[in-house]
Amino acid sequence: MCGVFGIFGHPEAANMAYLGLHALQHRGQEAAGIVTSDGEKLFAHRAMGLVQAGFSPRDLAALPGDRAIGHVRYSTAGGSHIKNAQPFAVDYARGSIALAHNGNLTNYEQVRERLEARGSIFQSASDTEVIVHLIAASTHMSVEDRISDALSQVEGAYSILFLTEREMVAARDPYGFRPLCLGILAHKGGVAHVVASEPTAFDLIGAEYVRDLDPGEMIIASDEGIRSVFPFPAKPSRPCIFEYVYFARPDSELAGASVYEVRKSLGRRLAEEQPVPVSAADLDTVVIPVPDSGVPAAVGFARASGHPFEMGLIRSHYVGRTFIEPQQSIRHFGVRLKLAPNRAVIEGKRVIIVDDSIVRGTTSRKIVKMIRDAGAREVHVRISSPPTRWPCYYGIDTPTRSELIAATSTIEQTREFLAADSLGYLSLEGLVAAVSQTNGVRPSTASARLPVLQDPAASHCHACFSGDYPVALSTRKTPSRPPRLVTAH
Amino acid sequence: MCGVFGIFGHPEAANMAYLGLHALQHRGQEAAGIVTSDGEKLFAHRAMGLVQAGFSPRDLAALPGDRAIGHVRYSTAGGSHIKNAQPFAVDYARGSIALAHNGNLTNYEQVRERLEARGSIFQSASDTEVIVHLIAASTHMSVEDRISDALSQVEGAYSILFLTEREMVAARDPYGFRPLCLGILAHKGGVAHVVASEPTAFDLIGAEYVRDLDPGEMIIASDEGIRSVFPFPAKPSRPCIFEYVYFARPDSELAGASVYEVRKSLGRRLAEEQPVPVSAADLDTVVIPVPDSGVPAAVGFARASGHPFEMGLIRSHYVGRTFIEPQQSIRHFGVRLKLAPNRAVIEGKRVIIVDDSIVRGTTSRKIVKMIRDAGAREVHVRISSPPTRWPCYYGIDTPTRSELIAATSTIEQTREFLAADSLGYLSLEGLVAAVSQTNGVRPSTASARLPVLQDPAASHCHACFSGDYPVALSTRKTPSRPPRLVTAH
Amino acid sequence: MCGVFGIFGHPEAANMAYLGLHALQHRGQEAAGIVTSDGEKLFAHRAMGLVQAGFSPRDLAALPGDRAIGHVRYSTAGGSHIKNAQPFAVDYARGSIALAHNGNLTNYEQVRERLEARGSIFQSASDTEVIVHLIAASTHMSVEDRISDALSQVEGAYSILFLTEREMVAARDPYGFRPLCLGILAHKGGVAHVVASEPTAFDLIGAEYVRDLDPGEMIIASDEGIRSVFPFPAKPSRPCIFEYVYFARPDSELAGASVYEVRKSLGRRLAEEQPVPVSAADLDTVVIPVPDSGVPAAVGFARASGHPFEMGLIRSHYVGRTFIEPQQSIRHFGVRLKLAPNRAVIEGKRVIIVDDSIVRGTTSRKIVKMIRDAGAREVHVRISSPPTRWPCYYGIDTPTRSELIAATSTIEQTREFLAADSLGYLSLEGLVAAVSQTNGVRPSTASARLPVLQDPAASHCHACFSGDYPVALSTRKTPSRPPRLVTAH
Amino acid sequence: MCGVFGIFGHPEAANMAYLGLHALQHRGQEAAGIVTSDGEKLFAHRAMGLVQAGFSPRDLAALPGDRAIGHVRYSTAGGSHIKNAQPFAVDYARGSIALAHNGNLTNYEQVRERLEARGSIFQSASDTEVIVHLIAASTHMSVEDRISDALSQVEGAYSILFLTEREMVAARDPYGFRPLCLGILAHKGGVAHVVASEPTAFDLIGAEYVRDLDPGEMIIASDEGIRSVFPFPAKPSRPCIFEYVYFARPDSELAGASVYEVRKSLGRRLAEEQPVPVSAADLDTVVIPVPDSGVPAAVGFARASGHPFEMGLIRSHYVGRTFIEPQQSIRHFGVRLKLAPNRAVIEGKRVIIVDDSIVRGTTSRKIVKMIRDAGAREVHVRISSPPTRWPCYYGIDTPTRSELIAATSTIEQTREFLAADSLGYLSLEGLVAAVSQTNGVRPSTASARLPVLQDPAASHCHACFSGDYPVALSTRKTPSRPPRLVTAH
Repeated sequence: MCGVFGIFGHPEAANMAYLGLHALQHRGQEAAGIVTSDGEKLFAHRAMGLVQAGFSPRDLAALPGDRAIGHVRYSTAGGSHIKNAQPFAVDYARGSIALAHNGNLTNYEQVRERLEARGSIFQSASDTEVIVHLIAASTHMSVEDRISDALSQVEGAYSILFLTEREMVAARDPYGFRPLCLGILAHKGGVAHVVASEPTAFDLIGAEYVRDLDPGEMIIASDEGIRSVFPFPAKPSRPCIFEYVYFARPDSELAGASVYEVRKSLGRRLAEEQPVPVSAADLDTVVIPVPDSGVPAAVGFARASGHPFEMGLIRSHYVGRTFIEPQQSIRHFGVRLKLAPNRAVIEGKRVIIVDDSIVRGTTSRKIVKMIRDAGAREVHVRISSPPTRWPCYYGIDTPTRSELIAATSTIEQTREFLAADSLGYLSLEGLVAAVSQTNGVRPSTASARLPVLQDPAASHCHACFSGDYPVALSTRKTPSRPPRLVTAH
Repeated sequence: MCGVFGIFGHPEAANMAYLGLHALQHRGQEAAGIVTSDGEKLFAHRAMGLVQAGFSPRDLAALPGDRAIGHVRYSTAGGSHIKNAQPFAVDYARGSIALAHNGNLTNYEQVRERLEARGSIFQSASDTEVIVHLIAASTHMSVEDRISDALSQVEGAYSILFLTEREMVAARDPYGFRPLCLGILAHKGGVAHVVASEPTAFDLIGAEYVRDLDPGEMIIASDEGIRSVFPFPAKPSRPCIFEYVYFARPDSELAGASVYEVRKSLGRRLAEEQPVPVSAADLDTVVIPVPDSGVPAAVGFARASGHPFEMGLIRSHYVGRTFIEPQQSIRHFGVRLKLAPNRAVIEGKRVIIVDDSIVRGTTSRKIVKMIRDAGAREVHVRISSPPTRWPCYYGIDTPTRSELIAATSTIEQTREFLAADSLGYLSLEGLVAAVSQTNGVRPSTASARLPVLQDPAASHCHACFSGDYPVALSTRKTPSRPPRLVTAH
Repeated sequence: MCGVFGIFGHPEAANMAYLGLHALQHRGQEAAGIVTSDGEKLFAHRAMGLVQAGFSPRDLAALPGDRAIGHVRYSTAGGSHIKNAQPFAVDYARGSIALAHNGNLTNYEQVRERLEARGSIFQSASDTEVIVHLIAASTHMSVEDRISDALSQVEGAYSILFLTEREMVAARDPYGFRPLCLGILAHKGGVAHVVASEPTAFDLIGAEYVRDLDPGEMIIASDEGIRSVFPFPAKPSRPCIFEYVYFARPDSELAGASVYEVRKSLGRRLAEEQPVPVSAADLDTVVIPVPDSGVPAAVGFARASGHPFEMGLIRSHYVGRTFIEPQQSIRHFGVRLKLAPNRAVIEGKRVIIVDDSIVRGTTSRKIVKMIRDAGAREVHVRISSPPTRWPCYYGIDTPTRSELIAATSTIEQTREFLAADSLGYLSLEGLVAAVSQTNGVRPSTASARLPVLQDPAASHCHACFSGDYPVALSTRKTPSRPPRLVTAH
Repeated sequence: MCGVFGIFGHPEAANMAYLGLHALQHRGQEAAGIVTSDGEKLFAHRAMGLVQAGFSPRDLAALPGDRAIGHVRYSTAGGSHIKNAQPFAVDYARGSIALAHNGNLTNYEQVRERLEARGSIFQSASDTEVIVHLIAASTHMSVEDRISDALSQVEGAYSILFLTEREMVAARDPYGFRPLCLGILAHKGGVAHVVASEPTAFDLIGAEYVRDLDPGEMIIASDEGIRSVFPFPAKPSRPCIFEYVYFARPDSELAGASVYEVRKSLGRRLAEEQPVPVSAADLDTVVIPVPDSGVPAAVGFARASGHPFEMGLIRSHYVGRTFIEPQQSIRHFGVRLKLAPNRAVIEGKRVIIVDDSIVRGTTSRKIVKMIRDAGAREVHVRISSPPTRWPCYYGIDTPTRSELIAATSTIEQTREFLAADSLGYLSLEGLVAAVSQTNGVRPSTASARLPVLQDPAASHCHACFSGDYPVALSTRKTPSRPPRLVTAH
């Protein structure tokens, strides 16, 4: 997953982009980058790691101009290397262009092979680069047309920002897989237009949320103002439902629904669908979230079930990437660095652990054991989404099917693997209903272009749970040429 | 505030110390250090910043031996400089010695002047260094006696660890201001003894908690085993009550009381002492913690008051030290980088914010405004401790009285400053009672030496709230010579 | 100026390349890079600064394989940025290719525009990159043919090495502007082929010099052995004469002539052409080189003139790039950091300073003043080459004509500017004769393809002295598009 | 060996110290440091490595004040660690003091033990630190008296600078082992006093040389001006003769003798004492220096012998500390990185190599072999000083006797080890005579206190050649306690 941010028409564009990326940091911690334009030239800085580690005040001062786009990168597709960091920026015949992409192209390899066969040279292993080459090779004259031309040749998921010397362009693919929002920011000299993956980025810089971009919409910001066009054939809207389950920040609203309230609602429905039966002797039952992502669902679960909510797992604020693993084994070591059991609310209790999802199952298994070792009488696991059975082709970094425990095991087998007393998942229907029936407090974003009536189950992309993929991954006819160039930092 | 960790008799002593300090990281983020001994020599490494940033696997591999002490430093007393980082280690006539100190000496300047007058040269501006010079100047023969001799000449707070080539010594001052716990850790080759500021450090490395050190107790670990002695005149025990309110980790237990349960109990009592009146028209009241430290008290407050608990402030995981401050002012900028308002649970609501304490009031004021800007109808502030009116002389880095808002303003003036609809603090009696009546789940630590009956109000140090200082800060007769040497990193 | 090094068939190819570049360090200090191949993949590492600063043992260990090419970069054409460092390496449709280039292409802009117009995207501002794009766009099948095809479309100077997964190719342009030599290195497992800008790189690794590459020659090394081809139309050979005057190391031999002996011979001829008249009263005349490049010519001048040779200027070994310039002016500060006057051999003497060339004249002026301040009675400047009046288009980083003092001033005006008592340059005829008549001690490298008879004045490129350019700089029809993308490190 | 620099009364004291140390860089490359005073406080910065690497403009800007002392460190006595870097600076009862020491104390261990026994704690393993402790423990009132008191308790070599908040003090031990010079520097606001190990440091900053400090002299610079005192019992002056042979820069003058001219004179005498016989068939004999230190002697040797001087070894400018050593052995690898044979002047010749001294013999052996491999017919080694047979106790980092080839082998055995055709050393008488009879061009520095008549052989310290030690190394009665504390950087 990744996050994107763009601003047009602000005297401190680089500073605003830095802050916007900071607010989107949960969408990607591997690398961060900002490209600005002063109307004549583009200026780029990219760095591995967190935004605040990679950008010094001096770095920001070297990014002049009143327009900027930025990117935080999560995925390791293409390898963890600075040259895969975004925004991707190049100089080509018509000038310079930079782009920041959240999503994943499903026909990347075919397009790349076609371009290479005619002599194009690729700098990175990222799918994003094909878009740049398509733009460079386009015979259209205006930047807007060149971008439309390029995007009409790629398939899959893209919420994407472009920056040229003069224009900023934002586009969302026709299915609207990944979120993208529009805002405005008043400042002393006028009004800036802002685009971001989630509205939380607007909140930090004091910008006002205007609306989500519609699927298939392209917005062009230039010195003449902003325009909206719909250059692609319309498709049924299928925004990613997993953003609500896990990815987005709880204080964000996406498509008019509060992520926090959706999650609480998931917890409530989960308590109804998958209750933990309580006898008279079991009054000592507690609901414990896996922090921080499980907290809202646990609040909802506790309220619906009547069991008390307790912080039974304490999350460390100081967890980073690399640790020294001692040679002598320490029980639950990996998970314990991040989460400590709070013995006082666990010992002798029936514990209901609420988490948002299970991927491989190994972390959940360690948590169950750790809770049991801390004295829990029973450990019941409740998951506020359906079993994750399919990989994502649209930008979330899930492992292959064979690594997804729900793809290879029954629920009962999974329960056994976790060594839990019971295991319950939310149903897909429950998930879709919770998302559809939750409102936010922001002004409505309904666009006239959005179909009024849609089968609820087809209103979102839930391929990771259902295997129902809106766009197929293109099958390859020829075996792919592996990259043969390894460049050190 | 600081944290200390020691281990004696473990083949991976440096690795264990690294992990122990990681679990104590909340007690100090400014600098970290470890000193080990292989029975012949001491090996030291210190670094500014977090433990995991300052210690690479290579650094740890350069710290051989089966005994180690470590320190995390918070305070900037003495200046933020690597030479003030601990453990402090020196070579002197009788060998080498290192020490790691949590606390603050109240007669530091007098002792330093006395030592300098006879020719001693100090390397640092830290109060800890006088202890080393007193040990070097002691005429006693055994390390144990030299340490007792030195400690008997200093006053104030010390939970302190010493490491020589052969022994590890742990001591807690006669008042027991700061916590210090003893544990054991079985490993393939035998059993190691472990000492730490809080038991959470034992949990991470899989060690078992044995008991707290008694005030005035000194434990000597050597190849002959461990011994406990009480070399100082007994004093009434006065452990710091603020550890329960804010400082300790919620999953720790101190003196047999669960910190988390104490905090929940503070919230319950606060709801009883300082309720927010609710009319029939006010059913939309929510209880919101200032995360993470305010969460347990908010859980207790919500349960006692019947108002729902909601995560109305979302804490960023990516907040570090330095930020780029934009030139154009952004509302609530400083606090917003760390905390984002969750509009969906705030808009149109009566909000009760629960926090552990108010120091200067500036952050609370920003939070109140931010909540109000997010649409709250009313904002009520509840604090789970009494007004903080006095500086701490025993190791917590509080500002001077003139900067403490509760020392210079009435509660009503403070409420006005915060722009809150109401403001309520817990009473001192309520605080003391909550601590005294909470139990933990660990085995009891009652020592025969602890006085059986004690006036509850005198059972802890609560000088920061009451001004009742168990040990006076020594007044200086001559004006202090300011340090005149400034060394760059 | 730059230096290149290649090796094929050695188990420690990266280590050998590191050492080879170390020996060529005088040809470029701005950046260094090595690309290796293990027969399947290319591995690249590039770094700003000196070879030994930019390559750690770990960096070298990450460069596996038995074939490698390397580059040291001097010029700032294209800007001082890591992305302009070489070897330039890319992944394209047919595999991967890296190249290391010494020289400068005179039709670079035309070729780049042609390529960009059809959609090619350039990563750098270096002229070298067009060669890669020409290779990628070539329709020929074999690497050898694709390279010949590409090189036949460029004009100017290139001594260039290519590395693919399987082959190493070395080529020298038809005029042979820049040197390129072939050697062999026996090792335990067989024999490796080596190519380098100067034979001194062979000496360091213990390789044996075989011969210079002929102008227009291309050598292909593969697992089948090495082959030599001449794919380009023959041109009159015009190797750079300035390599003898200044650029090459004195222990190198180029085209069968010892650089050191050429320089001594220049000094001897200079003493004959431009003697400093000595009267009976002037027996205290000394010959002083500007170290280190002026030393051999000063030895020759002293011997021919009979005046004693003295080290009157002491060169510091510790001069780096950046200095702290004091606010209060210090006389001769800039030059003094590098050169200190040796008062004992200067005071009261008639001093003849021997240097290789004068570019802007500012350094020479400072040296003359410094020598005079140290007590010289007279200061005579003698230059072992003709006046430098024209910029180099073939790879040496000379300033524009307007900055060359000899292009804008007469010799007498220059003398006045230097404040010297006299100034004398060697004639172009003297220079050409000295180079032509000097032999080396290495085996002859005469190739059958070399024309037997050639006008001596046309035997070398001496455009910087004569303005006689063998290849014209292509004039541009359209104004060049300046690069618009600025990327930070 | 080390170098010291001090300046008093200059508005850019830190910048001047930086430049002064740069000019003294040949005296120590391991670490560098500067301490300044603004009249109220001392400010210190120390760094490992070269001055220009360790001091950024920002570092210098953080060193305010108009007085400064600096130090470059060569020796690894006490270990290569930043805490052994100088100036050593401490805060003690009477204020702050810093010191920079060139030399070595012969009774260091006795004094340290005495101080530690009474409780002093040492920070470093350097002999310099005892002086600070003696000052701190002195009962005298003025800084001047405290310093005299401290220095009168130590024995051995010291050319030393002290800086307090208000005074700068320079002292040279009664034997005058190491050089120390006084200069003045006029600036806009007045005149600054300067002290440095060699006058070359004055030249760089434009200061004027005044005179050498006399042995046993102490100079005190304060706001009242400068004073000279002689607080120690007078001793026969014994300046180090090896400074002339190797250590000092050739453009320096020490005690009125030009180092360059002394070296040329050594070469002349060497040619007379140890000629290489030439028959009619041997007209192809050349004299080749080992650069750079052997150049002046080779110039003198060539002139006296009539054989031509040639740069037969080319020194690389790019030699640093660490190299990658290839696994497959390369002939002469170690020496070849630094020196390359210039085949054109060696092949077929009788070569006379002139060097300043032989320590272990291993480098000389490699050079002889390398010259022979480059085609020399005969190789004759001539050394411009006597055999080095004894370690230095006064500040030069020589190996133990067992490693000195001249201490364990006869001259014939050494010649055999070197595989040279002949080997000749200069006699001690020749060395002493050359030094005594050479003059410089600077104003005379003769002090009234210097004895007019002295046995020439006793006029210098030549213990490394003769074993005649002016001050004995104190023998230890008790075995030394080894340092037991290892601190990482």
